[in-house]
Amino acid sequence: MKKFINAVENVEKEMLSGLFKAHPDKIKPIDCEGVIVRKEKSENKVAVITGGGSGHEPSFGGYVGKGMLDAAVAGAIYTSPAADHIYEALKAVATDKGVLMIPMNYTGDIMNFEMAAEMAQMDGIETDMVVTNDDVAVDNSLYTVGRRGVAGTVLVHKIAGAMAETGANLQEVKAVAEKAIDNVRTMGVAINPSTIPAAGKPGFELNDDEMEIGIGIHGEPGVKKDKLKTANEICDMLLDKILSDLDYSGSEVALLVNGSGGTPLMELYLINNYVHEALASKGIKIYKSFVGNYMTSIEQEGFSLTLLKLDEQLKTLLDAPADTIAFKE
Amino acid sequence: MKKFINAVENVEKEMLSGLFKAHPDKIKPIDCEGVIVRKEKSENKVAVITGGGSGHEPSFGGYVGKGMLDAAVAGAIYTSPAADHIYEALKAVATDKGVLMIPMNYTGDIMNFEMAAEMAQMDGIETDMVVTNDDVAVDNSLYTVGRRGVAGTVLVHKIAGAMAETGANLQEVKAVAEKAIDNVRTMGVAINPSTIPAAGKPGFELNDDEMEIGIGIHGEPGVKKDKLKTANEICDMLLDKILSDLDYSGSEVALLVNGSGGTPLMELYLINNYVHEALASKGIKIYKSFVGNYMTSIEQEGFSLTLLKLDEQLKTLLDAPADTIAFKE
Repeated sequence: MKKFINAVENVEKEMLSGLFKAHPDKIKPIDCEGVIVRKEKSENKVAVITGGGSGHEPSFGGYVGKGMLDAAVAGAIYTSPAADHIYEALKAVATDKGVLMIPMNYTGDIMNFEMAAEMAQMDGIETDMVVTNDDVAVDNSLYTVGRRGVAGTVLVHKIAGAMAETGANLQEVKAVAEKAIDNVRTMGVAINPSTIPAAGKPGFELNDDEMEIGIGIHGEPGVKKDKLKTANEICDMLLDKILSDLDYSGSEVALLVNGSGGTPLMELYLINNYVHEALASKGIKIYKSFVGNYMTSIEQEGFSLTLLKLDEQLKTLLDAPADTIAFKE
Repeated sequence: MKKFINAVENVEKEMLSGLFKAHPDKIKPIDCEGVIVRKEKSENKVAVITGGGSGHEPSFGGYVGKGMLDAAVAGAIYTSPAADHIYEALKAVATDKGVLMIPMNYTGDIMNFEMAAEMAQMDGIETDMVVTNDDVAVDNSLYTVGRRGVAGTVLVHKIAGAMAETGANLQEVKAVAEKAIDNVRTMGVAINPSTIPAAGKPGFELNDDEMEIGIGIHGEPGVKKDKLKTANEICDMLLDKILSDLDYSGSEVALLVNGSGGTPLMELYLINNYVHEALASKGIKIYKSFVGNYMTSIEQEGFSLTLLKLDEQLKTLLDAPADTIAFKE
């Protein structure tokens, strides 16, 4: 294992500490490990909160700030955050308008968010929850009943966060988050795995000429191993699955070309080039594209494509101001 | 070689095309390959321009826009841009106030920028040039007489770009760029190399327990190969060299923890954490820190540390608004 780390047991702690030191103008810790909140607590708006395992940086601490999240709760690498940490985050950001929780669909995460919500409700904090499940690769997985939440989650957070800033009530923010979830689909691929520091070896193995199609964000397998193909052919495979799952014909979309952490920006832009051509040929118009490392799997080399079907409301919310570490509009 | 590409001879072209498709609101091409200019041409300000080989994304196309660059000229991967391309870029962005060229110190780049400037001067375009050379690892290198320009270049562009936006004249913009260059130092390290697609194999080799200290941004060797150490020990090695080169004691600095492309954000934040502690112990105050992939070497796993000593003028310029793809203030 080649990594720039110190002791494996301190990686998450040192990383979070470095995150806070880098961005004291935007975020701050609270007296509970793994919880990242806005520097200035919001009032008179629904608070939006998420969480999940570490290893997906900049998800989700990088999206805490004006126009997106009020708090993110980071678990250990690829591990659900603890219910009592989520509970502390809920208490830290709750307003009179309530809190919308938007975790990704992993069994442990959902269980802990639900448990935390029950604790918070006993304190009189109103909460509700929607769950992202944008990955079309598999219907169920090692860690989920139903689809996995992956990179499309970031767009759901952007939209829900923008709606919350308008002063909308909890049901209105929930409704638009659900609309985003209903209209977003993702599929990914990888050519080199990630290594959890404490594990010391890669989460899966691929031969020099192989790729894993439909991979999850923790290295979970997807559809199949296949021989490495050209970028265009791989994009076609991903798009075929996405477009067969939801009818995007004639619509406008947001496109997210998301890197897994170790994929150079060079390749992500090259991929973006082809996806624009491929969608144009299918009569799908790209309203906006996002290219970069939004939801990673440590140093995994891979990428995912996300399409979010837009209507006028979603466009407005997607374009609304956001001032976070990793997402600025 | 495992990469998401199509034909190796088309990588640069497809990447640039994908860059333009992703950001039509900020940048546009001109009728000359490799040239990236602002969507709206600036007037009544000094134009600031740079260029260099591709493979360093988001450098430099990602920094074209309000508050930073007016144009960037991209050569083939790790290859100087052609003089006639730089000349076309100069013509595209020149204003009555002139153009400041800020390339990095590589012999081929300097030669081509100088040649382009001569051509532009025959057209009546006023140009001047400053050259970044922030890398303290080596005094000369394979491709340079004198020090190499590396990640600190991005901070020089930020400062010169901000000064140009104030309406300052060419000599004033040049002077502040020179001040930034005089006060910025960088040193890097890598644990895994990058592969130029057309070469098909890595630019250098390291054993499983080795790192290259003082590496350049094209994989050029630096000080020495060494056994991989902890992140903190590596930071100490880099800082020792930087701090022995320029006296930062008692000063305020901007810190750039720059990833080489394949290094996960997790590790860059962990590094940032320690560098804050190390500099504090030496009485050096960090005014602002930047953590991420600013100047990459395709998919190389490595990082560099950059310190820029600040005075009030440099602080103001560093904090001034910037609205580019990869640098927003």
